[in-house]
Amino acid sequence: MNLITVGTVAFDSIATPFESREKVIGGAATYISLAASFLNGSCGVVSVVGDDFPESVITDLKSRGVDWSGLEIKQGEKSFHWSGKYHLDMNSRDTLATDLNVLASFEPKVPASFQNADYVMLGNLVPAVQIGVLRQMAKRPKLVVLDTMNFWMDVAREDLDRVFTMVDVVTINDEEARQYTGERSLKKAARQILALGPKALIIKKGEHGALLFGGDEVFFAPAMLLDEVKDPTGAGDSFAGGFIGYLAKTDDISFDNMKRAIVHGSALASFTCEDFGPDALMKVTAEQLQHRLNAFDQMVRI
Amino acid sequence: MNLITVGTVAFDSIATPFESREKVIGGAATYISLAASFLNGSCGVVSVVGDDFPESVITDLKSRGVDWSGLEIKQGEKSFHWSGKYHLDMNSRDTLATDLNVLASFEPKVPASFQNADYVMLGNLVPAVQIGVLRQMAKRPKLVVLDTMNFWMDVAREDLDRVFTMVDVVTINDEEARQYTGERSLKKAARQILALGPKALIIKKGEHGALLFGGDEVFFAPAMLLDEVKDPTGAGDSFAGGFIGYLAKTDDISFDNMKRAIVHGSALASFTCEDFGPDALMKVTAEQLQHRLNAFDQMVRI
Repeated sequence: MNLITVGTVAFDSIATPFESREKVIGGAATYISLAASFLNGSCGVVSVVGDDFPESVITDLKSRGVDWSGLEIKQGEKSFHWSGKYHLDMNSRDTLATDLNVLASFEPKVPASFQNADYVMLGNLVPAVQIGVLRQMAKRPKLVVLDTMNFWMDVAREDLDRVFTMVDVVTINDEEARQYTGERSLKKAARQILALGPKALIIKKGEHGALLFGGDEVFFAPAMLLDEVKDPTGAGDSFAGGFIGYLAKTDDISFDNMKRAIVHGSALASFTCEDFGPDALMKVTAEQLQHRLNAFDQMVRI
Repeated sequence: MNLITVGTVAFDSIATPFESREKVIGGAATYISLAASFLNGSCGVVSVVGDDFPESVITDLKSRGVDWSGLEIKQGEKSFHWSGKYHLDMNSRDTLATDLNVLASFEPKVPASFQNADYVMLGNLVPAVQIGVLRQMAKRPKLVVLDTMNFWMDVAREDLDRVFTMVDVVTINDEEARQYTGERSLKKAARQILALGPKALIIKKGEHGALLFGGDEVFFAPAMLLDEVKDPTGAGDSFAGGFIGYLAKTDDISFDNMKRAIVHGSALASFTCEDFGPDALMKVTAEQLQHRLNAFDQMVRI
């Protein structure tokens, strides 16, 4: 397995201003592994669920290249459940409930078949758990990408600082970049985060696109324009999965290839937004992806 | 005069989360004409001020190419004054006060030397006044660009609908596009606005860049990344002035040239943000502009 991810596999209850859905399939590792497998052909997952998680979903994702060797199924326990409500702008949201359940005692175990992976995506999780995964690798992977969120900046800052020094690429959103650094300017915030060690930083801005910083270079990719955003949940994870999936497939971690990887991630994330849960992402064809990549090219070419 | 604008010449009192300034030089026509003159060499202004507006500023802008033949100076009256407060994100603001003063009875008079202009920028103003300017033109200009704001959508919707059908390019911000059309999707909103007649629509997203829609084409230009945004007041007008100034200078209104015009507008707007009022814009050199255009090119090139 050349590419693995650690992250949640979960249920989401989602309210948008237009529609609500209970217990939709969700979780960072679900979206990451789906998007990554789409491009790379496969992706290993290290995660945990309860016995309430549908086997049909596990089978379905397996048929799409997801390797579940690192999935622990805890009998008699419940899967992680997140509940959130989107604001009218569909670009920001409030968390209504976080039922950790199996996640409360999650100790990731990286199977032997995953320990030599060159590409590792650390999905948003307790920073100590992310570090735990890295420590179980047989060798330093070629590229480690980290996703995190504001919550850990508040409650686990020290561990988070440590994991920042252990990875190659950090992905966070614009408000988190500002919160973490205390800088209003994303340019200054990026400088501060890169000084911690990562070779590159991706600042996700949702419908406003994404910025890639590395050394003295900056690249900007707009988000695809959609007729309708039905549910943006999982878009950031689909983006990250597409990003690392493209890098793993092409096995090229240059800054220039990261630009192409971001465009692929952005295209896959746009599909995710078109339906609740991973439904739209699961239906994507190579032809549809190519169509969206072409639209992107048109949108930025002068 | 190949290029003219109508709009306010005014005083602004501005509070940002970091600093406040009283009675800074402002007004849409001030920023538009400055940015447009920088690229086109000259720009005529149709506007009105009271006798409190500093003559030194009028002289200063004249030396930069601004033609004040259409400026009415009302003795014994006060200039338009706007007061606003920026939110912490510096990307949104509240209006604290709008003292119309001379603007309350403004009836624009387009001087004979302006009436054959090929390029007309209608700065944000009462839609009826914008229509009044168009009616005074000796011939249909080659290109009319309209800027407007949410306020007129609320209080002068009918006139605004009319002026939309009379112009070639509309520039509004993302929230205004949504409010005007009732569409959350900018793609759908653009379709609806273009159906009214304009050949192109520019949706300004402040620090998140700008979208250009025309026919079936979309172009996206990110905003320049700055170390510090001191005061964004006038950025939208500098953008519009740079846009039409570039088109007037090159005398090419193709969609492809509009893309280049947007990048020039965006670069000029970025200077405006670096200081209060038009100070930073007034100091820009051709070399500094080229430097920023290069940075833009780097930021989008794959």
